[in-house]
Amino acid sequence: MAVYTQLGGEALAELIGHFDVGALISAKGIAEGVSNSNWLIETTGHDGHGARYILTVYEARTEIAGLPFFLGLLDHLAAKRCPVPRTVHDRAGAAFRMVRGKPAALIEFLPGVSVESPTPAQAGAVGAALARLHLGARDFPQNRANSLGPAQWRTLFTACGESGLGSIDPALAGTVARQLERVTAAWPAELPRGVIHADLFPDNVLMLGDEVSGLIDFYFACTDLLAYDVAVTHAAWCFDAAGHRFDAAASAALLAGYDSVRALGAAERAALPMLASAASLRFLATRAYDWLHTPADALVTRKDPLAFARRLAFYADPAQAGIFA
Amino acid sequence: MAVYTQLGGEALAELIGHFDVGALISAKGIAEGVSNSNWLIETTGHDGHGARYILTVYEARTEIAGLPFFLGLLDHLAAKRCPVPRTVHDRAGAAFRMVRGKPAALIEFLPGVSVESPTPAQAGAVGAALARLHLGARDFPQNRANSLGPAQWRTLFTACGESGLGSIDPALAGTVARQLERVTAAWPAELPRGVIHADLFPDNVLMLGDEVSGLIDFYFACTDLLAYDVAVTHAAWCFDAAGHRFDAAASAALLAGYDSVRALGAAERAALPMLASAASLRFLATRAYDWLHTPADALVTRKDPLAFARRLAFYADPAQAGIFA
Repeated sequence: MAVYTQLGGEALAELIGHFDVGALISAKGIAEGVSNSNWLIETTGHDGHGARYILTVYEARTEIAGLPFFLGLLDHLAAKRCPVPRTVHDRAGAAFRMVRGKPAALIEFLPGVSVESPTPAQAGAVGAALARLHLGARDFPQNRANSLGPAQWRTLFTACGESGLGSIDPALAGTVARQLERVTAAWPAELPRGVIHADLFPDNVLMLGDEVSGLIDFYFACTDLLAYDVAVTHAAWCFDAAGHRFDAAASAALLAGYDSVRALGAAERAALPMLASAASLRFLATRAYDWLHTPADALVTRKDPLAFARRLAFYADPAQAGIFA
Repeated sequence: MAVYTQLGGEALAELIGHFDVGALISAKGIAEGVSNSNWLIETTGHDGHGARYILTVYEARTEIAGLPFFLGLLDHLAAKRCPVPRTVHDRAGAAFRMVRGKPAALIEFLPGVSVESPTPAQAGAVGAALARLHLGARDFPQNRANSLGPAQWRTLFTACGESGLGSIDPALAGTVARQLERVTAAWPAELPRGVIHADLFPDNVLMLGDEVSGLIDFYFACTDLLAYDVAVTHAAWCFDAAGHRFDAAASAALLAGYDSVRALGAAERAALPMLASAASLRFLATRAYDWLHTPADALVTRKDPLAFARRLAFYADPAQAGIFA
């Protein structure tokens, strides 16, 4: 949520000049992305009718290695009519260029706004869009391992330490140990795999009314269980932000929306309660780590880890298994 | 350089609905302004042809009291064909509305980018635009005292302390004491007064090539000496950012550009070396204060106070007085 790389008007105009998008009209640094610098760019357009783009300069080394996967995936999905932004290639055909020693990509701008309290209709539209993403990526030729799987959650929790977790909530260390054990032991290796978004929260979905106009921020995308992506999206869309209130109507709509495009198999459905616990653990792990390692006076908003401890408690409760039936 | 107030798509759409600008299409939090939250907003436009705006939510109490002055000034100058953004009034005619207990204004979006290394032609265009601003505001009926005048610089330097200033540069406390004395004693109360921008740095000017397409960020605007505004703008446009290198061609162009629209009087010209020292002290004061009071690990860029100590040394050197002759 910051602009780390400073680029003046001259540098931006020079960079934009390598793309067939017309002349630079405007550039505003935007507060999106945790670790990248982003600008909303306006140009005269390659046809002179005006066009907008997102310019991203990648700051984190981990993401740079994945760029051919991330940017290639956007092009692949856009060609399949998924509502994802296309990468604009430069005049030499490259999907990204270097600026100040960092890779920079020019990405199509999509309309829409992120909702804060999704309606069931919106959750249903997101479920369907996720299934289209899964189907659209079936013949995408690249693979990328999930760099935030159960082994990494364990590492993050270990780095928090028992006392660190205890400082967030006295019961947290015990809960985490039990649930990590349960989830790791029950991990269903045989379910259908493919490219997953892995982070489809409301702020990564652009909507116009009840329609999904854009799926964005694919920088956690990887190859993993499709049903795990359904579980992540469920945890992201079917609760209030704090995780206090489960929205049964949004849950039913999201699952029905997904099923209407790609029917979940019986084994996938049976695994969903466990995978939703796993998804809760994944966000609990990163949030707890960030909570304990971000100075309280830093100008970034620390996200409450307990919002996902509450989801975890909900999903791990056998009485709730019926919501996925 | 952050978005402090969190507004979801629903809240933004509700707010935009109070203005005759069509339906919300897109909203991106932008990294502009030090103490406000800003969004670049796209709507269908009141005529359905699409329109863009800057939505600002004011966080700082000092700015809120000045809003009728700041927003009224924009409307006044825009009516005089100055390239400033117009305030969009809501359906009830108000220049700002309250959202989450804070004032929010919808302001016209202007094209252009901020340059980093101005050419003489660009400096000349800015000089002329500044003079047009001064002339355009002559019949603006409101007044606002300068809340960052010599008395406040003294307060800021005192808050830094001799040891604080000494930690930035061993000679700084002595220089500041001497120059504050000189500038306060010589302050020319009799020069022409009017509305000044008071902060016309390159990042507050939008340009398309050599043309000024927008003057923005009027939140330091006040009633003060017009020649002081020329001095601030000179200090802002005629050096490299670090203040090491003076650009004589940009300086001559800026002054000629200003003179071509509003001729500086002889007394104003004579006062410029002193006023440019004063302008350097003003930015040295706020930068030194911020330097000493911003945690080094905060996610904001601290600006080097010495960049203005160098300008101060330049302007205070009698050998340089000729640049304003």
